[in-house]
Amino acid sequence: MSANAPIYAELCTHWLRIYRLNHLLSVAGVDRNTLMPPAGNEARANAMAELEGIIHGLSTEPELEARLASAEQEPLDDIAHANLREMQRHWRDANALTSALVERKSLAGARCESAWRLQRPANDWIGFLGNFREVVAVAREEAHMLAEKTGLTPYDALMDRFEPGMRCEVVDRLFGDLKTWLPALIRTVVARQAQRPVVVPQGPFSNSSQRALGQELMSLLGFDFNAGRLDESTHPFCGGVPEDVRITTRYHGDKPLQCVMGVIHETGHARYEQNLPRQWLGQPIASARSMGLHESQSLSFEMQLARSPAFGESLSALLQRHYGAQPAFAPENLGPLLRQVRSDLIRVDADELTYPLHVTLRYEIERLLIEGHIEAEDIPRLWDERMRDWLGKDTRGDYRNGCLQDIHWSEGLFGYFPCYTLGAMYAAQWFAAIRRQHPDFDVLIAQGNLAVLFDWLRQHIWSQGSRWETAELCVRASGEELNPAHFRAYLEARYAS
Amino acid sequence: MSANAPIYAELCTHWLRIYRLNHLLSVAGVDRNTLMPPAGNEARANAMAELEGIIHGLSTEPELEARLASAEQEPLDDIAHANLREMQRHWRDANALTSALVERKSLAGARCESAWRLQRPANDWIGFLGNFREVVAVAREEAHMLAEKTGLTPYDALMDRFEPGMRCEVVDRLFGDLKTWLPALIRTVVARQAQRPVVVPQGPFSNSSQRALGQELMSLLGFDFNAGRLDESTHPFCGGVPEDVRITTRYHGDKPLQCVMGVIHETGHARYEQNLPRQWLGQPIASARSMGLHESQSLSFEMQLARSPAFGESLSALLQRHYGAQPAFAPENLGPLLRQVRSDLIRVDADELTYPLHVTLRYEIERLLIEGHIEAEDIPRLWDERMRDWLGKDTRGDYRNGCLQDIHWSEGLFGYFPCYTLGAMYAAQWFAAIRRQHPDFDVLIAQGNLAVLFDWLRQHIWSQGSRWETAELCVRASGEELNPAHFRAYLEARYAS
Repeated sequence: MSANAPIYAELCTHWLRIYRLNHLLSVAGVDRNTLMPPAGNEARANAMAELEGIIHGLSTEPELEARLASAEQEPLDDIAHANLREMQRHWRDANALTSALVERKSLAGARCESAWRLQRPANDWIGFLGNFREVVAVAREEAHMLAEKTGLTPYDALMDRFEPGMRCEVVDRLFGDLKTWLPALIRTVVARQAQRPVVVPQGPFSNSSQRALGQELMSLLGFDFNAGRLDESTHPFCGGVPEDVRITTRYHGDKPLQCVMGVIHETGHARYEQNLPRQWLGQPIASARSMGLHESQSLSFEMQLARSPAFGESLSALLQRHYGAQPAFAPENLGPLLRQVRSDLIRVDADELTYPLHVTLRYEIERLLIEGHIEAEDIPRLWDERMRDWLGKDTRGDYRNGCLQDIHWSEGLFGYFPCYTLGAMYAAQWFAAIRRQHPDFDVLIAQGNLAVLFDWLRQHIWSQGSRWETAELCVRASGEELNPAHFRAYLEARYAS
Repeated sequence: MSANAPIYAELCTHWLRIYRLNHLLSVAGVDRNTLMPPAGNEARANAMAELEGIIHGLSTEPELEARLASAEQEPLDDIAHANLREMQRHWRDANALTSALVERKSLAGARCESAWRLQRPANDWIGFLGNFREVVAVAREEAHMLAEKTGLTPYDALMDRFEPGMRCEVVDRLFGDLKTWLPALIRTVVARQAQRPVVVPQGPFSNSSQRALGQELMSLLGFDFNAGRLDESTHPFCGGVPEDVRITTRYHGDKPLQCVMGVIHETGHARYEQNLPRQWLGQPIASARSMGLHESQSLSFEMQLARSPAFGESLSALLQRHYGAQPAFAPENLGPLLRQVRSDLIRVDADELTYPLHVTLRYEIERLLIEGHIEAEDIPRLWDERMRDWLGKDTRGDYRNGCLQDIHWSEGLFGYFPCYTLGAMYAAQWFAAIRRQHPDFDVLIAQGNLAVLFDWLRQHIWSQGSRWETAELCVRASGEELNPAHFRAYLEARYAS
């Protein structure tokens, strides 16, 4: 390839350098969130900003535009074309913003987020607004700059960085459909579950038993410990690099299932990273395709597999072996316990039935905000209305459990929320496809045979990296573009039957 | 300052960038040696090499030479002059080598070191020689390039990077003196200790009790846990950055004192880093002065303080509280146990009486090698002679416990060994100075009052960073240049009385 396409080969070398430097940012980020003591924070932030500046410089080198265009004219195979497409996308996004705006955004976000950490517990919405108005102003400018460069609408341009190719038009259709049937389904399920109480685990459960169970689950789910680790952090995450994936969990003595389900969730993310295509590693084409697809992997593991009736016996046996036998862990109680639905205030604690409404609410509000139809001070009103109408909750005046609960907006992270529910929809679609191809899928799972699942995900998702645009990847994997009917059918089958 | 000295101010900004980027190499290095799983190694090495290349590029920017010269002409205060002196030294060392040689060195060292990991246990000296000859050839070329740039002799030029200002002429005098009296002292002490056997600890000792004891010792010794941590690794080290110092230890169930003394040793290094001058942090002047001075801090803590009779009661009480009471930990046994001397084959396990001979042996051999007076294949003969004459040991044919035991040479690290014993000499000189100023020093230590020690080290060593050249720092701290009489007097008082 490189003999006939010298410019493309040069570009590959350039992106490999960026990949290697990003490795160090990942390591420093993982360390910051797991081990770093408080006094290390300022020096760490300065060091990371310095390297981010260098990476931004490499991503916006003036010669790149001409070189990207020239490489297009070289004789490239399909893989190289796809890789070049991803390079162009990265180049476009990196170049869309002025460095003045990037700096203003970083300052505004850091100030607002750091104050938010105290304002949230203090329920101080007015104080938050003082910093948040600047965050919104910057985000609108950012959206407009990105829109100008991409030809997309401002909100689409923000969302495109996380979910390339996804547009509001599609999200509106997908989420709009949800709103027509999901609130009623939730009411039905909540009412019915109230008739059949479940037994909750009786703790305490030691950290070491939770860790041992977590590691055994990770092995069972195919995590490669030769190329990754399980550590601890306040907020669980999956980080690191494809060659060395770090997932974290937290241990609460009286919430043993939180750790279990969190580990399973992060293991889904981890297996995607650990199985990205090795032959292209270091190139943009080898990256995970989108945040929605990433979430589809964690939710495939956590929701589709681990909370399924088919997996119940295996999970029950594991829990009883590590935690001891107790009524909560018996299969006939564990299933209902893992599938409990509750209209609640907090997104991160929500079950999979109410979660999409939390996401839809945020999507609608942040889009109105970015597009200038509302201002920051209008948020609580819109929040309260939706929580009342969709989840039957009164959130008036309760900012801490309302619109102050997420970190995203405080940092200026707009356009990300839809990915969570897109991921849930993709996951349902993957499982529908697997069951069509393997009618005995649930029997196999119940027998403890997970290979059929892993093989399918490896073949259709993990090994594909960013080879295809998302819509095409979806068609190739499942025979059709993202179709919310699968998600609805799945939720109804699991919860309403 | 910056208004009157704009070029100097620019240089400070430049070196601050380098400092920040080096932060990320430190973090990545600590992670590699504590947490990183094996499969992460290649990607980590590539990422670190990429950033090292960028740092080398920043350190050798062509404009720097002229800017460093112009800054000399600006009106600078003493601090700025000292900082500029350190910048010039760094610039000189970074520019001395061609990038072709740096690459060749890196490859030769990596190949030889990685093969050594298997050749050492296999006692395969001939196999080692196959790779090592190239390492020696590169090191000689490196030494000659550095010598040309610095005007030093080749070995001095290598040593100067670790112990700036130190010269073979001085080392020959210091180590030559040692050789005249130390072997005889060792024989006397070993013979006398054989008459009074000591009781060794009866294990096992749990990792958690060793960790708790280690952390309590660190607190007692003033380690700031808000700006650092204790972790685990195969080979204990002190790493990280002054704002976030990471020390490590390892836990052997039946060697509880190894962990204790190792933690104390690394805490000495850590307090130097944690107390480097904050007002200059990020500039070369704020760095630890030399590797010998660094070692003088770890040995001040481990040898001068922790193995002293005055500290015995405190240490005994701590050990008994964490490990339970047993005869080995009683003060009257613990002291002799911690001061046991044994002629042995392995440097890293050596006591402080035999250690300097292990170092002198290596210094003499590597210097002959670098200067071309011997070839790699002559090493075992010289090794065997010295081990026989100085420590009464027969090492013929036992390469694994002889000249293959250290990692240094396999990596091409020449000129470093002297620092270990220079550090031991500096430490003895510091304690002699403290005792002159505080005649009640040992009484205070025995009462558990360590402030007098920490205050002296902070004032004379830690807070000085690289403010003075080493010889001047030594005079300012102790009233004279490095004087081996203090080390001899200390060893004789501790072991021969």
